[in-house]
Amino acid sequence: MEYHIVLIDGHPYRSIWLDPGNPLEVCIIDQRALPWRLSIQRLRSSNDAYEAIANMTVRGAPLIGATAAWGLYLAALAQPDNPDHLKKAADYLSSARPTAINLRWSVTKLMSELDMTGDLAEQTRAIAETLCNEDVTVCRAIGEHGVTLIRQLSEPDSPGTPVNVLTHCNAGWLATVDRGTATAPIYAAHEQGMQVHVWVDETRPRNQGASLTAWELHHQNIPHTVIVDNAGGLLMQRGDVDLVIVGTDRTTAGGDVVNKIGTYLKALAAYHNNIPFYVALPTSSIDWTIDRGRDVPIEDRDAIEVTHIQGLDASGSVRHVRVAHDSPVLNPGFDVTPVGLVTGFITELGVVTPDEFPSLQQRLGL
Amino acid sequence: MEYHIVLIDGHPYRSIWLDPGNPLEVCIIDQRALPWRLSIQRLRSSNDAYEAIANMTVRGAPLIGATAAWGLYLAALAQPDNPDHLKKAADYLSSARPTAINLRWSVTKLMSELDMTGDLAEQTRAIAETLCNEDVTVCRAIGEHGVTLIRQLSEPDSPGTPVNVLTHCNAGWLATVDRGTATAPIYAAHEQGMQVHVWVDETRPRNQGASLTAWELHHQNIPHTVIVDNAGGLLMQRGDVDLVIVGTDRTTAGGDVVNKIGTYLKALAAYHNNIPFYVALPTSSIDWTIDRGRDVPIEDRDAIEVTHIQGLDASGSVRHVRVAHDSPVLNPGFDVTPVGLVTGFITELGVVTPDEFPSLQQRLGL
Repeated sequence: MEYHIVLIDGHPYRSIWLDPGNPLEVCIIDQRALPWRLSIQRLRSSNDAYEAIANMTVRGAPLIGATAAWGLYLAALAQPDNPDHLKKAADYLSSARPTAINLRWSVTKLMSELDMTGDLAEQTRAIAETLCNEDVTVCRAIGEHGVTLIRQLSEPDSPGTPVNVLTHCNAGWLATVDRGTATAPIYAAHEQGMQVHVWVDETRPRNQGASLTAWELHHQNIPHTVIVDNAGGLLMQRGDVDLVIVGTDRTTAGGDVVNKIGTYLKALAAYHNNIPFYVALPTSSIDWTIDRGRDVPIEDRDAIEVTHIQGLDASGSVRHVRVAHDSPVLNPGFDVTPVGLVTGFITELGVVTPDEFPSLQQRLGL
Repeated sequence: MEYHIVLIDGHPYRSIWLDPGNPLEVCIIDQRALPWRLSIQRLRSSNDAYEAIANMTVRGAPLIGATAAWGLYLAALAQPDNPDHLKKAADYLSSARPTAINLRWSVTKLMSELDMTGDLAEQTRAIAETLCNEDVTVCRAIGEHGVTLIRQLSEPDSPGTPVNVLTHCNAGWLATVDRGTATAPIYAAHEQGMQVHVWVDETRPRNQGASLTAWELHHQNIPHTVIVDNAGGLLMQRGDVDLVIVGTDRTTAGGDVVNKIGTYLKALAAYHNNIPFYVALPTSSIDWTIDRGRDVPIEDRDAIEVTHIQGLDASGSVRHVRVAHDSPVLNPGFDVTPVGLVTGFITELGVVTPDEFPSLQQRLGL
């Protein structure tokens, strides 16, 4: 099985990996430094893992889950014979961010598979590795199912006419272990020779679209154009968007989609312009315990994300500058797209419509 | 009549004025320097006026119109006996930006009122002054009509509960000669002692909301909160928005509203959440020659507005920094809100529903 599909300047990457030369350390890419610098950081404790999630060195629901799993490995390394220590670490890691369900899912899954009387370090390492490999397999399956949607929209007789996909935020390989969720069908289409072009919402306030998705697509040689978040509606009115694919931090049993703030506005515009709006997600992003999106906790983040921004100055140095007047700010991180605006869900088990959503739970045996 | 309602640190301002000490120069506020610096610039020729409009030293449909009128005065000053020179200046000024109808309206109106055999400088000065005074009167009337909408939503029995108004971009006094269009009802409500709070969309890419509207409201002591453009939908879902008021660069005879990019997305969200969506405009912003918004030219602006931003660094210096990966960019300046999403229009003649829009043309004798 080929895991490393992502090449940066010829070197294959995942977004998180155990250092083969020093298996006491877990490597991650500091996503706050992108696109300016590819900076590899090392996690040496569960506390490091917690901080990396909380301060958004890593972000993206599946990757947060994977990071928490490796955080448990690092906790077990410190005290391989102490289940209580590991349980405390599990609680602590689960609390690093409130909205993405994969964090809790990953920690719960790992803990449930442990034999508490055995070597916890060895077990957590094996489970974390399996979790990461499964995430890649799941993302690849999402790509294989989702690419059929792009193929249906492509016009092989008009070779100059790409399928225009709009995406919001970054649900790419940087948000997962590899391959991405929303980007997986795009990568698959590109590999299969289809013409595809991506409208990349810059995604204020943290600009994960302009900083991460654009950087990813650039390195995969996929044609794309960055737009401000305000622009997608006009493009849809003009017929310049064929398909919207986004990820999700948590989707409820009822099919409401909690995702990066602003997703809802794109779903409304897609709905009004008869453009298919798909959510690409591993089934681990579904919270079967909550029916309605309004009941999912929405993280309010720091005002500084809105009032300040980092960028490169004329000399090529990264600088933080204040970009807003000194006024009060509210900065909610996510919004809720009601199921009624969703055309379908692209999961590792196939593409399902909202009507088929309840039967998905049965298929999963949950 | 009280014209100067806007006080900055105790000093009354309009957004444009003839220097009383040197009537060969027209003063404007450099809106590109706000909120960091209140910089007064001087226009000494029609070319200066053209440049100020084209490079967005001034912006906002009514203010662009007023600046063009003063540009004609400056052209006439240079050659007071040469109607051909003035006509050329009129054509030139009309071409400074494509979308806002007030530019063409103002130039056409001024030129039609001239006696070409008389002193053109004296006449253009008088007409430009009248045009500016009328703009203030019109904005005041918009405020008086619009404030009734806020009063209907206010709860005098719940003194701690403000009416929450969301606005996009800057349709404030900086976009007009004084008082503003979308802000005029807000200023009126505040003066009348109503509790009002404004959600200020930051309005990427040029951030006129975070830079101009927030600065305006701060100086008028009106409670407000800056949000990213992505956040309005969530706030509407939560019931935290009572009313949306925006301006317009051009509204068609059919009632389609061309306004700052992103307005359409807020109109969709308001519509889906049963929140009234009003457009505040002088009737001079209506283009009776075009029926549908899709036929209005939409200005594509430079990619640098998306890829770069200016802000204050830690030392308090203004710096331009690159904030996006080096990818292709598309930067349309406006979008179209279809009339079907508009609750009503707040004009100087009163609040009219889309159904009453055609009769407005009759009332205006057009």
